[in-house]
Amino acid sequence: MINKQRLLDDIEALATFTDQTPGVTRLSFTQNEQKAKQYLKDQALVSDLIVREDAVGNLYMRYEQHDDTLKTVLIGSHIDSVIHGGKYDGALGVLTGLELLRTFKANQQTLPFHLEVVAFTDEEGARFKTGMIGSRAAIGQLEKQELEATDMNGLSLEQAMVLEGYQPERMQEVQLNPDEYLAYLEVHIEQGKVLEKQALPVGVVAGIVGLRWYEIMVTGEAGHAGATPMADRTDPLIAASRFMLELDEWVRTIPDAVLTFGQIKVDPGSINVIPEAVTFSVDARALDEETLIALETRIEQAMVRLEEKTGVKVKRTPLDIAPPVKMDERVMALLSSAIEQSGFKATTLSSGAGHDAMHMASVMPSGLLFVRTKDGHSHRPDETIADEDVVTAAEVLYQAVQSLDPETFS
Amino acid sequence: MINKQRLLDDIEALATFTDQTPGVTRLSFTQNEQKAKQYLKDQALVSDLIVREDAVGNLYMRYEQHDDTLKTVLIGSHIDSVIHGGKYDGALGVLTGLELLRTFKANQQTLPFHLEVVAFTDEEGARFKTGMIGSRAAIGQLEKQELEATDMNGLSLEQAMVLEGYQPERMQEVQLNPDEYLAYLEVHIEQGKVLEKQALPVGVVAGIVGLRWYEIMVTGEAGHAGATPMADRTDPLIAASRFMLELDEWVRTIPDAVLTFGQIKVDPGSINVIPEAVTFSVDARALDEETLIALETRIEQAMVRLEEKTGVKVKRTPLDIAPPVKMDERVMALLSSAIEQSGFKATTLSSGAGHDAMHMASVMPSGLLFVRTKDGHSHRPDETIADEDVVTAAEVLYQAVQSLDPETFS
Repeated sequence: MINKQRLLDDIEALATFTDQTPGVTRLSFTQNEQKAKQYLKDQALVSDLIVREDAVGNLYMRYEQHDDTLKTVLIGSHIDSVIHGGKYDGALGVLTGLELLRTFKANQQTLPFHLEVVAFTDEEGARFKTGMIGSRAAIGQLEKQELEATDMNGLSLEQAMVLEGYQPERMQEVQLNPDEYLAYLEVHIEQGKVLEKQALPVGVVAGIVGLRWYEIMVTGEAGHAGATPMADRTDPLIAASRFMLELDEWVRTIPDAVLTFGQIKVDPGSINVIPEAVTFSVDARALDEETLIALETRIEQAMVRLEEKTGVKVKRTPLDIAPPVKMDERVMALLSSAIEQSGFKATTLSSGAGHDAMHMASVMPSGLLFVRTKDGHSHRPDETIADEDVVTAAEVLYQAVQSLDPETFS
Repeated sequence: MINKQRLLDDIEALATFTDQTPGVTRLSFTQNEQKAKQYLKDQALVSDLIVREDAVGNLYMRYEQHDDTLKTVLIGSHIDSVIHGGKYDGALGVLTGLELLRTFKANQQTLPFHLEVVAFTDEEGARFKTGMIGSRAAIGQLEKQELEATDMNGLSLEQAMVLEGYQPERMQEVQLNPDEYLAYLEVHIEQGKVLEKQALPVGVVAGIVGLRWYEIMVTGEAGHAGATPMADRTDPLIAASRFMLELDEWVRTIPDAVLTFGQIKVDPGSINVIPEAVTFSVDARALDEETLIALETRIEQAMVRLEEKTGVKVKRTPLDIAPPVKMDERVMALLSSAIEQSGFKATTLSSGAGHDAMHMASVMPSGLLFVRTKDGHSHRPDETIADEDVVTAAEVLYQAVQSLDPETFS
């Protein structure tokens, strides 16, 4: 079985490689990220695992079987963090994988596949504002021009890679051959409250939501706050309030869908002037494309009704779009069964944020195991997972790998 | 009777004294304001009226009767403008009064009172951000420290007065003796749409609304837009929307009351983050103190209900307060009767903005006649009053002065 204390100690140890405290600030291609990688390499090498780093900085640690015909099961996540992040986001997945490798290796356990753990380069995008660098390179979906993205000091991603000894010009070569892989597994902090509310330590992610971002501008009629009776007003802020409230109430009836209005601005923005225009953002997410389309349709209908009912003009500008990604049902079944074997109810939930598993899912059967998050807090120094939940997650992953039958994925 | 064309020509002539076109930009104590005053003085002197200017720049023009025991009826408004304002706001009241003076003088008409017209100094406050300078000085309510207010070049109101030859140190001496006055009358552009909607050229102002300004802060719980299911949210923007919508609907049932939310800000204001807090302004106005108190009470009740219903925290900070001012009922009756004699329905309405009449009302019976405004547009270059409405306003004022019985006001 896994060494619980070693895993918990590793989490604390890795958290010391940070540019500042409290919390973890470990941006990609910095000294502290290099030190964290060296820590992982040292741990792997001392356990007699195979270590390799690719041209963009993806770090692979491998427990190989004595059979060249076997495929590989990949476990991964990332070790970079946001600024003032916590010690579990990313690190938990890599360290859980490492703990499994060490355990199987120490037991000299024979597996019907090679087992590999990867720490993907720059998942967060905190430094270059473009994330999932490593996993996208690994599936051949990183564009060369993205290497031109710069950090706050004007240093490009490409330059940062070169400074740390990587070879971005050989980016194409890091692409994995999907034929050599059976499946991808990732353990990650939930960053929400779904598991906490259900009092469950872990849950199986069914999919990563797709999103549509819009900017909506509602134009009414400015007027003097004192000289314009209520009946004569075409107030875009009141209209926008009606719109947001209606959609907020409606979306609660739609499973696995959320709508968020995170930004709002009024013009002219004077205390004694009825606004002329209100601009706000819409972040619409859902687990499947049909629901995303339903959200968009409902937004459009609400716009038309608002124009008819209140006399404002409403304009919608699409800002961004990302399709939903389903996790592989066979991997989900494997993880669910492992959870039940560990004595817990297997629940499924969706991921509202993107993860490396989202990209891996496009080339191999992929699964994502979420771990209960204290108060839903993540991307902040007090991000917390209870020690027993860390252990449960590792044990479930261990159980899943133990039970993984290559036949299921061939 | 009055000379309609002369009045209309005066309005055009005064509008030429502007720092820029289109529209009128005539700030206090500027060359163009001095030129506009000189134009008024010239018109008054050529009509054999008495002209005097006081120590803070209030310009008085007077048609005096041959009886020292008579009191005076004062007609007034202002000739300064906002930046990019129109040609009627203020100027209409002064020029209408001037036209009456000239007409009575030319006819050598005997009146049971002296008739005086005043162009009050700096009503708008556009230059020094503190307005109603002249009328407040005339009632002894201008504080000495207000003269320290500075314009955008750092020049103080006191310095600006001195530069134009006025004597701010003699400010106290400009106070009028209310015992010498019977009443104050003002004609002013409505700056709203009430008269236009009723298809009436003029209306009698019953009072100037009082106001209460607040800032309301709604605090909820920030969260990841993707990772936080709708049921787990405490979204302060949705709560604020509910609050604004409820109060907007409620205030429509309250006569002569308005609520405006002119400013709103969300924190942190990221497209993919549920807001942590929303701050918005409330501008509450009503024609009487009881209604203002009812508005405040209802706002407080709505805050409590919002906290109970949605789990947010709501905090209210008072920003400003101004009491409502009632116009004198005798002056209102006089103006109403004059309107009916001119063949129109006499309607009453409230003023949502402050005017010089508001201050004069504290020392003498005062009345305010509003004139229909095209599309409610004011404080902008396209501010428009139809020529026939200008004439109607002047004729109504003429009729009111003709009918004014000193006994009513003694």
